[in-house]
Amino acid sequence: MSRINYIYHFNEWKNEFSFYQEVKVRFSETDMFGHLNNTVPFVYFEQARIAFFKEKGFMQEWVQKEHETMPVVADLQCDFMAQVYFDELLKIYVKVNEIGNSSVDLHYLGTREDGSPCFTGRGAMVQVSRKTGKSVPWTDEMKNKLMSS
Amino acid sequence: MSRINYIYHFNEWKNEFSFYQEVKVRFSETDMFGHLNNTVPFVYFEQARIAFFKEKGFMQEWVQKEHETMPVVADLQCDFMAQVYFDELLKIYVKVNEIGNSSVDLHYLGTREDGSPCFTGRGAMVQVSRKTGKSVPWTDEMKNKLMSS
Amino acid sequence: MSRINYIYHFNEWKNEFSFYQEVKVRFSETDMFGHLNNTVPFVYFEQARIAFFKEKGFMQEWVQKEHETMPVVADLQCDFMAQVYFDELLKIYVKVNEIGNSSVDLHYLGTREDGSPCFTGRGAMVQVSRKTGKSVPWTDEMKNKLMSS
Amino acid sequence: MSRINYIYHFNEWKNEFSFYQEVKVRFSETDMFGHLNNTVPFVYFEQARIAFFKEKGFMQEWVQKEHETMPVVADLQCDFMAQVYFDELLKIYVKVNEIGNSSVDLHYLGTREDGSPCFTGRGAMVQVSRKTGKSVPWTDEMKNKLMSS
Repeated sequence: MSRINYIYHFNEWKNEFSFYQEVKVRFSETDMFGHLNNTVPFVYFEQARIAFFKEKGFMQEWVQKEHETMPVVADLQCDFMAQVYFDELLKIYVKVNEIGNSSVDLHYLGTREDGSPCFTGRGAMVQVSRKTGKSVPWTDEMKNKLMSS
Repeated sequence: MSRINYIYHFNEWKNEFSFYQEVKVRFSETDMFGHLNNTVPFVYFEQARIAFFKEKGFMQEWVQKEHETMPVVADLQCDFMAQVYFDELLKIYVKVNEIGNSSVDLHYLGTREDGSPCFTGRGAMVQVSRKTGKSVPWTDEMKNKLMSS
Repeated sequence: MSRINYIYHFNEWKNEFSFYQEVKVRFSETDMFGHLNNTVPFVYFEQARIAFFKEKGFMQEWVQKEHETMPVVADLQCDFMAQVYFDELLKIYVKVNEIGNSSVDLHYLGTREDGSPCFTGRGAMVQVSRKTGKSVPWTDEMKNKLMSS
Repeated sequence: MSRINYIYHFNEWKNEFSFYQEVKVRFSETDMFGHLNNTVPFVYFEQARIAFFKEKGFMQEWVQKEHETMPVVADLQCDFMAQVYFDELLKIYVKVNEIGNSSVDLHYLGTREDGSPCFTGRGAMVQVSRKTGKSVPWTDEMKNKLMSS
């Protein structure tokens, strides 16, 4: 039941990533089982996602309190492939998998220093209005930026 | 792309839950968008899951360093249905959806004080050997305990 | 150098507490040394402090975005007296030690289920203007509420 | 009551730091007041402290489960000098202030990109036996390493 249903050919899927952020596993992110606690990759995904949106020029506006729209996470998932330990230097890759009208499906890949994958993930973000909470379609300019890698 | 693919009939699915843990949203769990940060429901899932395993009598052994086996999270997912705010009192429900040979698929539901759902989730756990890291089948006794609600 | 310089007579100091919040140590709050990570008591302090301010009737206004003032932490400290482990049920006590013009010095005590202390702490909060960032004096009504236990 | 009692001359004190770690403020580390949550500098202190001990050659042994000793935090404090916001790149400095028989008093300084201080801190660590929990004196070699900057 834990087949990774959002990846067809792992190597093709992996090769499509280029943007990444480096993170070093903190001591406080381990747990008493001696490895990275399973809740932390979602923190890494958020960090990589925000850096990705920042590069696209979106994040700067979204964090302005008076800006009309903000991004909201619709769903998130993570598949754990290998244990990760304290002080490891990971690369957290992120890419656009699919663009909807007002949403975007992002895929994630975490790799260790030897390049081997330790976890994968995905999740949809929706652009919503701060006032109404309703989804707000991407402009064509935003779509173009999201599509360019 | 954010359809909840692990839920068929929401009300039936919801009615099968009985075990839950209460959590109160901490100030430090909010973010600058003013609501619960999206990484925190996974912390709540872990808390509810562990309380659930504790009630089944499993957790006490798993946290013993010298115990042969430990539980490992294979995957996790969360679908966000409504914004959650500081100081809300949530119920985090957990139930067994499916039992494998050495794994178990758990489903989660978070509800607010008025009973409305705010997020759902699922994830598989695998029992592994601390020494080899390989999966270790459930005993019949464990399976029976997991199946009894 | 680790003498607790804000406590004179421990038993007298301890007996002055009455308000507390219960917290259960989460698995994700442990670290690979097998005990509660040292950064987490500050999360517990915040939770207890906010519940304390809520009981005084302050917090409800402070979390309103349009409210004129907000509380800011000036400093925090914690002295660790005993290791704390997964799943322990702690009481986190908080009391007013001293009231300044626009600030309040709060003291904290964490105890285990057997009543023994596991950590102590203190820290000053200042009421500041959201617009100017400058300190805003307590009203007499607020001072009275802070002084009543 | 929030005077920084462990700093005499701020500029002299500041100039004694050389070792630092860079951290970027994560979105999940902000809170609904729009700034870095006050519990997070302690996470940064731990990260800087561990990198510091790693450079000294201590940490590698301490994280071995079978190693005789481990470091334990005796106390921690932080003084907040300026609000810190999402995505800021901070330098977290750490230095030895004083060496005891089996303990070390570490001082911390957080600075923003323009070099201005945003928080300071200190805290004592004790080397203890994993078996007995009792303090274990530093060897002369360890003392020498701690004293060399």
